[in-house]
Amino acid sequence: MAKTKYTLQDILFPKTVAVIGASRNLSKAGTIILKNLLNHGFKGKIYPVNPKAEEILGLKTYKEIGEIPEKVDVAVVAVKAEKVPKIMEECVKKGVKGTVIISSGFAEEGRKDLEEEILKIAKRKGLRIIGPNTTGVYNTENNFITSFVQLIKSGKGDIAFIAQTGLFLGFQLEHLLTHEKLKLSKVIGLGNKCDIDDAEALNYLRKDKQTKVVAIYLEGLKDGRKFLEEAKKTSASKPIIILKSGITPEGSKVALSHTGSLTGKKEVFNAACKQAGLIQVKTFTEMTTLLKSFSKLPLPKGNKLAVMSVTGAGCVLAADYVSSTNLKITPLSKKTVTHLQSKSPNWHKVKNPVDMWPILEKIGIEEGYKEILYSLYRDKKVDNILIVFGDMKKLEASISNVKPPWKNKPKKPIVATLTGYRSKVERTKEELEKQGIPVYHDIRDSVFALSKLYQYKKYKEKNKESAKREK
Amino acid sequence: MAKTKYTLQDILFPKTVAVIGASRNLSKAGTIILKNLLNHGFKGKIYPVNPKAEEILGLKTYKEIGEIPEKVDVAVVAVKAEKVPKIMEECVKKGVKGTVIISSGFAEEGRKDLEEEILKIAKRKGLRIIGPNTTGVYNTENNFITSFVQLIKSGKGDIAFIAQTGLFLGFQLEHLLTHEKLKLSKVIGLGNKCDIDDAEALNYLRKDKQTKVVAIYLEGLKDGRKFLEEAKKTSASKPIIILKSGITPEGSKVALSHTGSLTGKKEVFNAACKQAGLIQVKTFTEMTTLLKSFSKLPLPKGNKLAVMSVTGAGCVLAADYVSSTNLKITPLSKKTVTHLQSKSPNWHKVKNPVDMWPILEKIGIEEGYKEILYSLYRDKKVDNILIVFGDMKKLEASISNVKPPWKNKPKKPIVATLTGYRSKVERTKEELEKQGIPVYHDIRDSVFALSKLYQYKKYKEKNKESAKREK
Repeated sequence: MAKTKYTLQDILFPKTVAVIGASRNLSKAGTIILKNLLNHGFKGKIYPVNPKAEEILGLKTYKEIGEIPEKVDVAVVAVKAEKVPKIMEECVKKGVKGTVIISSGFAEEGRKDLEEEILKIAKRKGLRIIGPNTTGVYNTENNFITSFVQLIKSGKGDIAFIAQTGLFLGFQLEHLLTHEKLKLSKVIGLGNKCDIDDAEALNYLRKDKQTKVVAIYLEGLKDGRKFLEEAKKTSASKPIIILKSGITPEGSKVALSHTGSLTGKKEVFNAACKQAGLIQVKTFTEMTTLLKSFSKLPLPKGNKLAVMSVTGAGCVLAADYVSSTNLKITPLSKKTVTHLQSKSPNWHKVKNPVDMWPILEKIGIEEGYKEILYSLYRDKKVDNILIVFGDMKKLEASISNVKPPWKNKPKKPIVATLTGYRSKVERTKEELEKQGIPVYHDIRDSVFALSKLYQYKKYKEKNKESAKREK
Repeated sequence: MAKTKYTLQDILFPKTVAVIGASRNLSKAGTIILKNLLNHGFKGKIYPVNPKAEEILGLKTYKEIGEIPEKVDVAVVAVKAEKVPKIMEECVKKGVKGTVIISSGFAEEGRKDLEEEILKIAKRKGLRIIGPNTTGVYNTENNFITSFVQLIKSGKGDIAFIAQTGLFLGFQLEHLLTHEKLKLSKVIGLGNKCDIDDAEALNYLRKDKQTKVVAIYLEGLKDGRKFLEEAKKTSASKPIIILKSGITPEGSKVALSHTGSLTGKKEVFNAACKQAGLIQVKTFTEMTTLLKSFSKLPLPKGNKLAVMSVTGAGCVLAADYVSSTNLKITPLSKKTVTHLQSKSPNWHKVKNPVDMWPILEKIGIEEGYKEILYSLYRDKKVDNILIVFGDMKKLEASISNVKPPWKNKPKKPIVATLTGYRSKVERTKEELEKQGIPVYHDIRDSVFALSKLYQYKKYKEKNKESAKREK
């Protein structure tokens, strides 16, 4: 990366932006990009470029980039593919640092030559390219956004995406923001990645202070070795959740015509991921599950898990799911058992999983919940806690009233499962997540999240040790 | 089952019901049962029984069941476990046909003897028992409900539950009704199943005209052979979705103290399920996924699947997920390809999975969606259709405007995946489901549903053949 003049930093933090061209889409792409920049409150200067307009959305519009009366840091390009080389010439002449090429019709449609052409032009002056065939980037620090899908604003968060699909500046982002209330740091949509690729994005995000967790959606890699090197370095300090598609011969064939990707073999990729500490998921749902826990929770000290469930079936299912993971349902400390037994009816024997019901029945929901949560949280034999709730009466009020035994964030990973009447579930979920407890619908998702936190914790430890030995 | 006098029919369709006793719970169980019966509009007569009250919720209350001035069909029993034998004596004397015993404190707490005692009393007059340690039953035909959790009403539907947990007359039911808008026929909550068991419930539901799909949550079985016999007979005409917990040594240990169940070995159970045509799931989420599709969709003719996706990533992921199932992404008929190619820009080559975007871009979302859906639906080389949507602009309106190519229900299984901005997704989902297309959030869930429909279709075929050969 040393030979290139400009970096992702230049593309993500421009002071001046030109938006070149219109309609890649059903609606005018260029116009929506402008709308997004204005709605999100991008603080830099915005210059629309369009040979046929004087003004767009109240912004003075220039016939070509050369006419803009000041230096331009980044050009967002949304013109037909065959026009892009000419635009690139103009950008180079203007001294632009980076282009985000929204246009499609390149390698993914058999025009690899066009990609080579624009890259050659760019390289003359160290101009960098994101794309082509992408929705581009989103930086929540300065509200710079290049998507041609009209999007709502994310609060400043600690989750970054590297995506080889427009989804993360589209539907998938909207899902994360509106269903899961997650907040992002940066989205880097790479498209066909003719220049800036996953490895460079990882390198950048490793050093990015806003980013705590990195998520990658990947179809194919051009330079696997470079990617894995950067991944390994990044995993040493930040978790990387990765969804690799095209992992089957069938999917692989389809990927070729989506982003022109050669996808490689599943087994090779799996082994490489393990070595580089990458946390693999199979679906966007699993990815969301992990992002929430990795963003909200600390890593566990060990694999000892305590379960507290309001339903007997929850205790049984949790034990089933745990048994196929790296976690262990641990015996509780004598102190915890003695204390909780004193809060329980005699006929009930307290053990792990803790069936909460007899205790709640004896001393009330609020008091019972508090006693169990505090006991397990303070139990030194417990590294992780899984709570299984249903939306029973008074639960919402009880959770609001019970001040958790931590400030801001728990010091051990705690996740909850909650199901029931929709509106009640949503309010209670919001309250729990405010307290620092991620909430899932299914017990298996909760167990999955905890087991992956522990997997990553083990990787980090091992990695540290081997780094020491190498010294 | 011939030796017993009364059946599940008597318990599910009582004309007179006595509700005996109070508080098994934090709130008064007996009172909530009464409330449910009144709120749900149970049409039979309701007699509260409580030695200390004259009137409960406006209903004249009797000191004991013997005082009720007419015949009583079913008694719901919610008194302390040790009082149940005396109540059973009174029920037998009164000529009650069935009791639903809500009370806990039996085998699950080491009091197997108490269960044997009440069963012995019941058997003297053919009185039948549901439970003990259960939330009981729910029949949406006559609104007879015995849950001690205050529940909303389900519309009359075609899904029946047999559950060894209270969840299906509690949180889990509320989830199904409020999140997924599913409708039920019957819920039979078996609890410790000292008398009526899964086999008898299956036998009943097989003949129940309201029930099209049966779901079972099972911890343990007392008579595996009998269960599998009934399961096999039922599978021949109705699909059975089963979630078996306690399938690991860890879960098994926990199940023993939940419902006093001995759970048996995973491998044995899996093999038996396969033979009896049971469709196994691992989570309540998977169960819900399948219930929706099995309730709404026909079985496919074959395993040939067409995918239509608005995103390239959707095409790739669908191909990946399909490749590990019994389905095949099929070449489309020449007619379909020619037709859709004529609606597509030249640079794009139509194939399966169908990337919808170029077509939508060229001829508009509404027209494009219609052309693709109609072509695939009418293509004789296509047995199943998977649609991958995002909540793009005008999608909701387009779906409302495009009349589907079927009346009421599609003749081929069609499922959709939809993600994006929450409120928009919910409205569009409602519209699609009204048209007969079940909607899921994740592509893998959609593929899972279709593959299980095909698995069941194959089972039915094979079963029919072997039945013929045996003749």
